[in-house]
Amino acid sequence: MFYHELNSKIDYTRSNLRWNAWGANDQDFGRKAQMPEILDLLKREFQMEAIRETPAVELENIDLPKSKLSPSDLKSLGSIVGKNNLKVDRFERVFHSAGKSYYDVLRLHTNKLKSFVDGVVYPQKDSEIIKILEYCSKNKITIIPFGGGSSVVGGLEVIKGKGQKAVLSLDTTRMVDLVSFDPISLTATFQAGIYGPKLEYGLNLKGYTLGHFPQSFEYSTLGGWVAARSAGQQSNRYGKIEEIISSVKLISPSGVVETLRAPAASIGPDWNQIVAGSEGLLGIITEVTVKIHKIPETRKYFGLVFPEMRSSLNFIRKANHAEIKTSMLRLSDASETRLYEYLGQLGKKNTPLRILKNLIQNAVLKWKGLGEGKCVVLVGLDGSRLEVARSFEALKPLWKKAGALYAGEKLGQSWIHGRFNMPYLRNHIMQFGMGVDTMETSTTYDRLEDLHQAGLAALETSIPGSRAMCHLSHSYHDGACLYYTILFPMDEKKPEEQWFKMKRKVSDTFAAHKAPISHHHGVGFDHKSWYQNTLGKVGVEGLNGLKKVLDKKEILNPGKLFHS
Amino acid sequence: MFYHELNSKIDYTRSNLRWNAWGANDQDFGRKAQMPEILDLLKREFQMEAIRETPAVELENIDLPKSKLSPSDLKSLGSIVGKNNLKVDRFERVFHSAGKSYYDVLRLHTNKLKSFVDGVVYPQKDSEIIKILEYCSKNKITIIPFGGGSSVVGGLEVIKGKGQKAVLSLDTTRMVDLVSFDPISLTATFQAGIYGPKLEYGLNLKGYTLGHFPQSFEYSTLGGWVAARSAGQQSNRYGKIEEIISSVKLISPSGVVETLRAPAASIGPDWNQIVAGSEGLLGIITEVTVKIHKIPETRKYFGLVFPEMRSSLNFIRKANHAEIKTSMLRLSDASETRLYEYLGQLGKKNTPLRILKNLIQNAVLKWKGLGEGKCVVLVGLDGSRLEVARSFEALKPLWKKAGALYAGEKLGQSWIHGRFNMPYLRNHIMQFGMGVDTMETSTTYDRLEDLHQAGLAALETSIPGSRAMCHLSHSYHDGACLYYTILFPMDEKKPEEQWFKMKRKVSDTFAAHKAPISHHHGVGFDHKSWYQNTLGKVGVEGLNGLKKVLDKKEILNPGKLFHS
Repeated sequence: MFYHELNSKIDYTRSNLRWNAWGANDQDFGRKAQMPEILDLLKREFQMEAIRETPAVELENIDLPKSKLSPSDLKSLGSIVGKNNLKVDRFERVFHSAGKSYYDVLRLHTNKLKSFVDGVVYPQKDSEIIKILEYCSKNKITIIPFGGGSSVVGGLEVIKGKGQKAVLSLDTTRMVDLVSFDPISLTATFQAGIYGPKLEYGLNLKGYTLGHFPQSFEYSTLGGWVAARSAGQQSNRYGKIEEIISSVKLISPSGVVETLRAPAASIGPDWNQIVAGSEGLLGIITEVTVKIHKIPETRKYFGLVFPEMRSSLNFIRKANHAEIKTSMLRLSDASETRLYEYLGQLGKKNTPLRILKNLIQNAVLKWKGLGEGKCVVLVGLDGSRLEVARSFEALKPLWKKAGALYAGEKLGQSWIHGRFNMPYLRNHIMQFGMGVDTMETSTTYDRLEDLHQAGLAALETSIPGSRAMCHLSHSYHDGACLYYTILFPMDEKKPEEQWFKMKRKVSDTFAAHKAPISHHHGVGFDHKSWYQNTLGKVGVEGLNGLKKVLDKKEILNPGKLFHS
Repeated sequence: MFYHELNSKIDYTRSNLRWNAWGANDQDFGRKAQMPEILDLLKREFQMEAIRETPAVELENIDLPKSKLSPSDLKSLGSIVGKNNLKVDRFERVFHSAGKSYYDVLRLHTNKLKSFVDGVVYPQKDSEIIKILEYCSKNKITIIPFGGGSSVVGGLEVIKGKGQKAVLSLDTTRMVDLVSFDPISLTATFQAGIYGPKLEYGLNLKGYTLGHFPQSFEYSTLGGWVAARSAGQQSNRYGKIEEIISSVKLISPSGVVETLRAPAASIGPDWNQIVAGSEGLLGIITEVTVKIHKIPETRKYFGLVFPEMRSSLNFIRKANHAEIKTSMLRLSDASETRLYEYLGQLGKKNTPLRILKNLIQNAVLKWKGLGEGKCVVLVGLDGSRLEVARSFEALKPLWKKAGALYAGEKLGQSWIHGRFNMPYLRNHIMQFGMGVDTMETSTTYDRLEDLHQAGLAALETSIPGSRAMCHLSHSYHDGACLYYTILFPMDEKKPEEQWFKMKRKVSDTFAAHKAPISHHHGVGFDHKSWYQNTLGKVGVEGLNGLKKVLDKKEILNPGKLFHS
């Protein structure tokens, strides 16, 4: 069922992928034809005099220093993985030296990135990884594990460990085997370098789904999901990745930690939950056993329009507390709702009939009390026909009581259709002087409304003239995440400082509200100081104590997360 | 709803509790009147010539060494917690020197326990705990954290750390405050020393439940649940304790780790899941925020009789995979079913009418194919009337297809009534030369049947003439737990060695099946070697690396779990 809309045919050959933007060379924003209209909107919205072209520098103009890997390193590493799986060319080195955050892409566009990996290895087997870790530990080479390379928190920032001489990217994407499959217990074990669509497609062919669809799905890997505690868009049904994993295999320089394939246990601190979120600091995740599900019989995705934020938040809370089965409850705040409304109009001709239809629609909404502040909630239901029908019926009194209007399945279908599309929009607008970034956190229901407002205020005051909006894409028994997007005209002279200021202000706001610095993006380099401050000295040092046992020479992704 | 059957009035004054058996002095086995019949059954079943009286030694005859706490220690510790909250008397020292495992109780009964704590502190505040940890770190005093004292895995074994001079029990049960209550997000924060019934009763008065009812419920604490990864009898609905916690506060000798109250996050390894299962080795758990639920509108607990193990296992697996909401699916294997059947008959007079009724009942069962191998599954449903009815209807075709017979709600009610009763039976039979112990593990569905058999065989061959039985009390998407009970005539001369042999054999069997050494009892001292062998050297050393940061002097519960 799912595979129809997933691009299981993506060619992940490295040279086919964009080194400074999202996606593959042959993929693009679904509404590319409407880019002039979009730019026009942005110009009006941000009161810009003119749209400014800000083309990215070409790959050959990136200031790439000489690789610090010696001929002897190259020989040794090449003999481990095979010569063809060791890369030192310009494309591979630059491609592996940054993630996909606004800050990463900005620096690539403007030739401001300062640090680059000195080479890339593509192992295929655990035994090769063991040898690589051994060689690099002995020879003072930093290793940055690399899956899909989609980190948006500086998880791939090239930081050389103290006293180390070179940095090697360890790309796991040749490790793609289905290791074992258990249709009785509904689990499957994969090598961790497999990309989302390949994993999902493989399961779909057998009648199963993982149900894990993060926004980065097309360009992220199983190992990356686990390393960064990824959340899929249907997490209400399938859980965050840390709930999906049944066991993991981690290869550290000191040896292997492999957890038991057991549904639950009482055997000390949970190593699955130590490996999940370890962001490459403790070892290379090489295998993951995941819980799988039969492909649901049917699905129903639909929109609801609420008068304002509070009533829609209450709806989501009550739906969770009533334990109604949903796959997704995705609330767009008033600003995001307006943006999607606009995008929905794009490319449609303003015939008199259409204008009339819009007028009537708006009049009805106003009459129902659904004006400027209105918020859309997208509800996703997957399951048997009976389950879906029952969830729908159970939700109905909740949304009616909240004064919401049923807005039909078209909205849901259009969301499904465009679910992986948004990152491609950034590829375009960054070429025209526009910046866009996302920040996310989570908190308990009692604090959601305050934090929502505080986050928006922090963002918009940090970049005067910017527009911030927010959605709530994952909800739980006790709270939900808040996912912010900020759009702004790039500062012409100091775009990096503009970004720093914004990042600092919103992160300080999360911290002041005792909210985590991330719900599913991770910590990496960008969030390190807020993470460490909220966790506290003992927590940080404890994890470093653990790391020092697994990674004695501290070669694994140093300078990030809990490592200073 | 729940509190009617829970003893919220238990007086936990230490001297009111049994130091060498389960429960308080004024509590007893519900069927005490039938003990002669039970002993008679045991005699027949185990082909014993006569029931042998094995009374326990009296407290005053326990060989208790002199406390190694110096007058200066006593003065200092007394000044931290208040003189009245520092105890060195015989009762307190013995009470705190063992848990409630068969091995612990056996040694207390026979005056074979060798190591005792030198004193007990009862702090009430975090600030007192900080001072105690500081004093003991400086003065080489081992600390064994103590909640309800219900460990059955040697979690309270008195082991003095290397180079340390005395052992102090840190009893948390004066720490019982409700710290905060959030009816919006449905969470509550308690001090961790609160006992199950007090916590549950407090919530019930407000209309809420935690829903966490381990077998030890009456005599275990919130902090103990978290430290040992406890599972409640309704875990299908409410989750194991590690899923129930939202945040924790851990006080280590190096300082505090307090996790954020957030529904989910992507901020490195999950400290909640490091603290859960830490069994007192990393710090004292002083506060826990838990997810709470409205008391369900109704419940329906009923029995099903299956022809044999395989069909009942399949039923449980399919109910999980169909995501039918249940609170409990509790399968007793054929042996356990027969025992419960017998216990159910106790105290009922054999009138001619009753004999006829039994004959007819047995004939019907046989005609349905439900003979000697039959297994009972107790199904627990909690929720709204609609939910309960729907779950019942959804389960029906599954049990019918499996050839099971609906056995009515009486069975369910009698289980609810006796849910906390079984540990009291041991108090009696150990006075008559009978041993009883429990072991538990978990595995994936594909391996359940094999492991079930292998576990039974290991137990019964380890003690010739014993009877082993098993139930499956917690089930999941990918597997379930197996909980064994073994009954045996105590070896007259070497009862400890008899127990060692049994423990070794069944634990080796779990390990050979790559099953964890515990599903919810924990590791403690008794399971240490199997735990460490299955986790492996790197995993064990990694956790010790973490411990060494938090507990530099290694004063916290040394020699257990991952600590050697």
